[in-house]
Amino acid sequence: MTEAPADIGPAPRHYWEDFPVGSVREFGAYRVTREEVLAFAAAYDPQPFHLSDTAAEKSLFGRLAASGWHTCAMTMRMLCDGYLLHSVSLGSPGIDNLRWHKPVYPGDTLGVVFTVLEARPMASRPGIGLVKSQTEVKNQNGDVVLSMQGWGMFRRRDGDRTDDTGT
Amino acid sequence: MTEAPADIGPAPRHYWEDFPVGSVREFGAYRVTREEVLAFAAAYDPQPFHLSDTAAEKSLFGRLAASGWHTCAMTMRMLCDGYLLHSVSLGSPGIDNLRWHKPVYPGDTLGVVFTVLEARPMASRPGIGLVKSQTEVKNQNGDVVLSMQGWGMFRRRDGDRTDDTGT
Repeated sequence: MTEAPADIGPAPRHYWEDFPVGSVREFGAYRVTREEVLAFAAAYDPQPFHLSDTAAEKSLFGRLAASGWHTCAMTMRMLCDGYLLHSVSLGSPGIDNLRWHKPVYPGDTLGVVFTVLEARPMASRPGIGLVKSQTEVKNQNGDVVLSMQGWGMFRRRDGDRTDDTGT
Repeated sequence: MTEAPADIGPAPRHYWEDFPVGSVREFGAYRVTREEVLAFAAAYDPQPFHLSDTAAEKSLFGRLAASGWHTCAMTMRMLCDGYLLHSVSLGSPGIDNLRWHKPVYPGDTLGVVFTVLEARPMASRPGIGLVKSQTEVKNQNGDVVLSMQGWGMFRRRDGDRTDDTGT
């Protein structure tokens, strides 16, 4: 409707059936800026090694590093742009094994490798299917900086449309 | 040093020894605003049910709801204010069993119950100890909206101080 972003409209939509086990999607080129690292940290994670060069140099990070939750947020933006905004996604109940393997620094460019691990219909909601995925985030050197597994809920192509999300 | 926030200074500091197994801390009263929900979603999770009242009404959320990653970020702010900024915390390797149990809505007030599940010295770094904790986030009705387990690294009171974080 009128509040919906202009880029959410008649675009192709991916349903649960479009995430077969073993399928891999790669996307994203998120440029991490110093300004954004500092702004996120000031709002949500004001530990000194996320706000101060001097404190960061003395920390295990070595230099100013993004909050791990900021890396999650940047990853979510890549997942949205990479497939979620073009899918009939209904949200996620949670995440397993979230790991921050290496620091993320201003100047890094992040990308995602998204792999479908499992897929099954949702027993309690016939029109919805669940997808378990592995998300790996790599920096410009190919180092994995974050990994996690998550469950996502997607409408099935042949499912009940009465509770459409309106997306 | 000069970049460090003014509130990080000679305040009491908690070491690894100050997180005994079974200890419980309760803190936080984070007021969730519509403006912040929309701003976070626009930046990091622009799915329609986080940006549009109309889309949200048709979604499983029922009305405009915060991104789950926004709830994580707000939780991190409460963890910082509640104990991390007064601790010799060195960061976290990751999170297990992150679950978004219920939607978080504008107008909600969130609080944290933080419980220490395990504590042990870090084998590879003698001056550092690990703490495994359970974080539960509740809304003003007492409903658990988020839960997760995480490992945190803390300096030991009797540990090697040569790699001090400077915090």
